[in-house]
Amino acid sequence: MNLKAYRQTRGEGSLAIARALEAVAVETGVAFAVAPNAFDIRLLATSTGLPVLAQHVDAVPEGGHTGHLTPEAAREAGAVGSLVNHSERRLQVADIEHVLERLRECGLASVVCTNNARVSRAVAALGPDFIAVEPPELIGGDVSVSTARPEVVSDSVRLVRQVDAHVRVLCGAGVKTGHDVRRAIELGAEGVLLASGVALARDVRASALDLASGARA
Amino acid sequence: MNLKAYRQTRGEGSLAIARALEAVAVETGVAFAVAPNAFDIRLLATSTGLPVLAQHVDAVPEGGHTGHLTPEAAREAGAVGSLVNHSERRLQVADIEHVLERLRECGLASVVCTNNARVSRAVAALGPDFIAVEPPELIGGDVSVSTARPEVVSDSVRLVRQVDAHVRVLCGAGVKTGHDVRRAIELGAEGVLLASGVALARDVRASALDLASGARA
Amino acid sequence: MNLKAYRQTRGEGSLAIARALEAVAVETGVAFAVAPNAFDIRLLATSTGLPVLAQHVDAVPEGGHTGHLTPEAAREAGAVGSLVNHSERRLQVADIEHVLERLRECGLASVVCTNNARVSRAVAALGPDFIAVEPPELIGGDVSVSTARPEVVSDSVRLVRQVDAHVRVLCGAGVKTGHDVRRAIELGAEGVLLASGVALARDVRASALDLASGARA
Amino acid sequence: MNLKAYRQTRGEGSLAIARALEAVAVETGVAFAVAPNAFDIRLLATSTGLPVLAQHVDAVPEGGHTGHLTPEAAREAGAVGSLVNHSERRLQVADIEHVLERLRECGLASVVCTNNARVSRAVAALGPDFIAVEPPELIGGDVSVSTARPEVVSDSVRLVRQVDAHVRVLCGAGVKTGHDVRRAIELGAEGVLLASGVALARDVRASALDLASGARA
Repeated sequence: MNLKAYRQTRGEGSLAIARALEAVAVETGVAFAVAPNAFDIRLLATSTGLPVLAQHVDAVPEGGHTGHLTPEAAREAGAVGSLVNHSERRLQVADIEHVLERLRECGLASVVCTNNARVSRAVAALGPDFIAVEPPELIGGDVSVSTARPEVVSDSVRLVRQVDAHVRVLCGAGVKTGHDVRRAIELGAEGVLLASGVALARDVRASALDLASGARA
Repeated sequence: MNLKAYRQTRGEGSLAIARALEAVAVETGVAFAVAPNAFDIRLLATSTGLPVLAQHVDAVPEGGHTGHLTPEAAREAGAVGSLVNHSERRLQVADIEHVLERLRECGLASVVCTNNARVSRAVAALGPDFIAVEPPELIGGDVSVSTARPEVVSDSVRLVRQVDAHVRVLCGAGVKTGHDVRRAIELGAEGVLLASGVALARDVRASALDLASGARA
Repeated sequence: MNLKAYRQTRGEGSLAIARALEAVAVETGVAFAVAPNAFDIRLLATSTGLPVLAQHVDAVPEGGHTGHLTPEAAREAGAVGSLVNHSERRLQVADIEHVLERLRECGLASVVCTNNARVSRAVAALGPDFIAVEPPELIGGDVSVSTARPEVVSDSVRLVRQVDAHVRVLCGAGVKTGHDVRRAIELGAEGVLLASGVALARDVRASALDLASGARA
Repeated sequence: MNLKAYRQTRGEGSLAIARALEAVAVETGVAFAVAPNAFDIRLLATSTGLPVLAQHVDAVPEGGHTGHLTPEAAREAGAVGSLVNHSERRLQVADIEHVLERLRECGLASVVCTNNARVSRAVAALGPDFIAVEPPELIGGDVSVSTARPEVVSDSVRLVRQVDAHVRVLCGAGVKTGHDVRRAIELGAEGVLLASGVALARDVRASALDLASGARA
């Protein structure tokens, strides 16, 4: 779950969400991971048992780079991977390739976000661990990608498999309910990338339980 | 001291440097602050008594912004301020103004980096707490700005005072020794912005003691 | 007048607009200038007598820079100046300073766009020929900055004069009619920066005549 | 041939180079194309018979975008295609896809630059007309990619064909002589992307004749 930069998802807020997710993960056996802002990576990695991802790392080698975040520093803070190329933090294609190589060297998982099936196919050629396809116009909205544009998910799954069968496809944008998750899995996705729908839910636990029910159906 | 993104300045490395600086600060009465990467802000803020700055915050309001760092989240992690517009992370002028307003609202100090006296004068009009003038061509080098281009420092001090006498001027780039610090202060600077010279020093304590001697001379 | 990147303002379209403006300029004695896309600079400079500005130049020296536009090349194509830092093409502050110096060396006029009075004051310290203050939220809209937010104009005029009395202030955003122009001039502006209101007008000549009437009132 | 932003390649300079290339193209039957800066597209398109490419177009629809260049405006100025994602003007991956679609709709050819074989493979999935692989560290240097890193060329050719056999592969970086061209063609490239080696040559005609001899060998 991508916690973005909401008022509700910094510091103690992110910790409360992560703890609720962890409890649901334990109860249901469904895997959850959490991507807080960089300031909170270490807090969540040391205070919960959830896998913690960075939301972004920069395509620079370690060295004299002010205000840049390296995969190596993310790992040292406790991250097990990173989102890459989120539609709110897009990268140049050569930089995606560079970051993926760096993450691999660090033993960190990569989740590259894409905006449509064709871009998913291109990114698959760079060999990430996961591709999360998210049509930008649905991000933060009320309709799930798996309902509004199911072909984006199924086409991404198909095209990515043609290029590299080891790359697993997630989908995101508007995903909020167990039903959305179930539809995504039926379309061939192996999981979902979540954000505002759950991070800002009044009852994170109830919301996470609903999502988990979709994953297990 | 700007810890940048060096291999030596992440996690435990940054903590060791911060502790050495803190000890020197206590012994000498000279003020030090430290700017680690975002992952390490909370670690240094909770484990040391040094003022901790962010190296960068993004010019976005809190909300759905993946991979962005807000002043509010920096404060919650324990930062007391932020570098802004470092030459390795430059901002658009409207964004500098936005970030300064946000930092003020959060009660956080701002240290805006500039590259020459004319830009220092422009930035002074935006009302930051500090301006740190650093000619990019000297950053990471062996010769201090206060030796190589003293007029950049003295002109910045003079022009900034004309615009806003409350803005304090620091200088950086190549500053490594107590002598460099003393020269900077003679030129009108109220402090220095340090990076590789000390962060990568074999003996951080000795290096910091030398710097402090320059500040007290 | 900023012709932007509209379908109606490329090639022959931009030429027709420029000719209409030139005729009105001659008839009324009111000065007009035109900023077409880079492809059309030479066309308008050779086919009309209007002063032609570039919409943007890049902050790079002449050399191996693909897809970059230099002040020197703009001048050679017939431009007499350039917009700088338009809200749709913002620059870092150090780059604004660099571009202004280059434009000066080329004998080209500079029109730096700003988003509010405080940023206008900062930019004035960099010594441009003109500052065009345009609140981004009003750009392309139906209400003129001189009506909706007159204090942005009058404050910019006042603050810019404090810093450098040689810098002339224009205003833009929503400016469409002679009345808008008159109000702008009453607020202390020496001209206006126009775009969609006139470039997309059904009758460019009539629209330009109305604007000119405001300038002469 | 990419004319970049050199002092020697603006206005009349670009025209002289284009005329020399055109003469060699006619004499030798070898195809040349030229990519001047945006200001000079129309000049070269109307004054020579060479195919003219833009060095860059922006990933924005036509509309209110100051300082942006659209494929539609490039076509109207006489361009028959555009370079995309040159290492000196890199794009985000979603923007490459957007620009390629726009160029196709305009009937313009696309030449996407890449930095290595893996990125070539990724870009092939986006269906450009040409991919020009150019290791950035060799650009502007004295050793040709086909000599220094032949595997970058041959691997790109092989991987691109696997993804989309219609995409033709060019190579660039350090290419200056007929021998370099011949090596490139032996490695499977269908042409070369040239810049400083020829654009800055003392005798452009002699240089172009030498290159052409490599293409015909």
